[in-house]
Amino acid sequence: MHVGMVSAAAYGMNAPDAPFEKMTIDRRELGPLDVLIDIKFAGICHSDIHTARNEWGGTRYPVVPGHEIAGIVSAVGSDVTKYSVGDRVGVGCFVDSCGNCGPCRDGEEQYCTAGATATYNSRGADGTRTLGGYSTQIVVTERFVVKIPDDLALDVAAPLLCAGITLYSPLAHWGAGPGKKVAVIGMGGLGHVGVKIAHAMGAHVTVLSQTLSKKDDGLRFGADDYRATSDPDTFTELANSFDLIINTVSVNLNIDLYMSLLAINGTLVELGLPEKPIQVSAFTLAHNRRSLSGSMVGGVPQTQEMLDFCARHGIGAEIEVISADQIDAAYERVVASDVRYRFVIDAATM
Amino acid sequence: MHVGMVSAAAYGMNAPDAPFEKMTIDRRELGPLDVLIDIKFAGICHSDIHTARNEWGGTRYPVVPGHEIAGIVSAVGSDVTKYSVGDRVGVGCFVDSCGNCGPCRDGEEQYCTAGATATYNSRGADGTRTLGGYSTQIVVTERFVVKIPDDLALDVAAPLLCAGITLYSPLAHWGAGPGKKVAVIGMGGLGHVGVKIAHAMGAHVTVLSQTLSKKDDGLRFGADDYRATSDPDTFTELANSFDLIINTVSVNLNIDLYMSLLAINGTLVELGLPEKPIQVSAFTLAHNRRSLSGSMVGGVPQTQEMLDFCARHGIGAEIEVISADQIDAAYERVVASDVRYRFVIDAATM
Repeated sequence: MHVGMVSAAAYGMNAPDAPFEKMTIDRRELGPLDVLIDIKFAGICHSDIHTARNEWGGTRYPVVPGHEIAGIVSAVGSDVTKYSVGDRVGVGCFVDSCGNCGPCRDGEEQYCTAGATATYNSRGADGTRTLGGYSTQIVVTERFVVKIPDDLALDVAAPLLCAGITLYSPLAHWGAGPGKKVAVIGMGGLGHVGVKIAHAMGAHVTVLSQTLSKKDDGLRFGADDYRATSDPDTFTELANSFDLIINTVSVNLNIDLYMSLLAINGTLVELGLPEKPIQVSAFTLAHNRRSLSGSMVGGVPQTQEMLDFCARHGIGAEIEVISADQIDAAYERVVASDVRYRFVIDAATM
Repeated sequence: MHVGMVSAAAYGMNAPDAPFEKMTIDRRELGPLDVLIDIKFAGICHSDIHTARNEWGGTRYPVVPGHEIAGIVSAVGSDVTKYSVGDRVGVGCFVDSCGNCGPCRDGEEQYCTAGATATYNSRGADGTRTLGGYSTQIVVTERFVVKIPDDLALDVAAPLLCAGITLYSPLAHWGAGPGKKVAVIGMGGLGHVGVKIAHAMGAHVTVLSQTLSKKDDGLRFGADDYRATSDPDTFTELANSFDLIINTVSVNLNIDLYMSLLAINGTLVELGLPEKPIQVSAFTLAHNRRSLSGSMVGGVPQTQEMLDFCARHGIGAEIEVISADQIDAAYERVVASDVRYRFVIDAATM
């Protein structure tokens, strides 16, 4: 079936401090390997806000954020083999990569040596700026489309495409599972999914949150322990005890203090991308042979593995569904940490 | 055989800025599990200088440094089973530990949860301050004594007890071997041994040194490549290429720059213990899933393994043997990086 250029509804920003407004955008003519997706839900990720407001620099306007996309295939290119019209699918943080480098061949497209193409605010293969998932439709090459299992509702699946894989990947890479003690710093959009996944993997899970205000939720999501970081006893009682700590907080913490909680060969994984450099003492690292590591979302094969894992364990994100005209208000609430636990835009309201 | 308290000759310092002077020290009466060692050679480690000059704080005077000890067993306690009079033995950075905690049971005594007893300037089990290897004799419990293989001369073996194991342990832990690209930052007392060991393990070895002044030595020790870090091209040409980088430099470097040389899943191990915190960007860590790690010498079983490995591969430290009255001058030259590559004190001159 030949599908020409599609005009889609979208919500975007025209300047760092402008409100969101409805706009009409072009989605490219369907190539032989392309999939046209009717977007049903798009999650709001903190990265969307950083980019929309140009807090990381390099944003080109208009910008249409959104890289937590869940929808239904409405057309496929002539050479597409993996998907058919009607399939429930997702798209995450990337929509293209070179496909030839070592990381791409290993299914770690996020580390493509040529630089993977981000779902929005990135230069696509055709030279145009990519526009993201706050929209009614998107065209993506099938290599970057994943299947959403039938058991997983599209709205709670959407945030898994970024938040889910961002947590699943380091938990899997550093071996969270039975006999391992895992701590998750922060109980927000990323952290709450991390608790669910780490628990389902069989690890002993501790939440380290500023206060105990979300303790009941944390225990319900599968945490075995829940500690307030405002209480100094937390750091003496839990010293040298964790195999893996996942930091989802994006402000600069006292990392030496958190690393003192790592047992021998323990790793603290930074997911939060704080603005200022992280400071760590060489003595903290040397004691217990500790590591401070990073991790960036996950590759396409692992994203599929994560969705299948979540479907098998009944894991979805905890969400508040909003209409498109509520995006600005939702951004304010995300910045104020006032969301339990992820906003998802209903594309039917665009 | 009953051996009472021994009076040994030693060289120590009475104040942070005092010169070394000859002194007579007491070595404890031989306990049932103790080994009395006639020290033949003691290496000079940069840590000796930091401690002697109280640069890390906590030094008690008089201090007798030295934790790179090679000698001959001259008496053994009644219950000693591993060693006999005449055995060629070594002692490294620790002389005791609890023996019961997880790390001790795993042979990682350096991470003893109760705190291992350092060879000098540490509180021993009997409550007295430990005095190190710049001496003619030492008494050590047999659990912390290792065998020096016959093929290894005692003078070139001495520095292996700290420098050798400090490099061998992270190289082994992070899998240096065939197919792995390893870089060593710094071509000093630690770095030159790292090059030899990493090469013998089968890894591809690159030295990253400020200048090319020691390039011929580096290639002779087994380096496959040798680059000047004063040349900016080094960082563009080698970007994203190493699986493991071992940093032996103890001044604060631009760690983000060095970490940009790490390939996917690569690790930079800090051995240098710089004074100020290390600064690293979360973005640097996230890209390629990089790790910044530490490592502290190695346990007793691994120290024995390292000595056996070095004997098998004909590896000794490159040394300048000095007499005891040259220690002050040697310290100045170590601080000025003017030694190829390790000073070793001949205990016969005490």
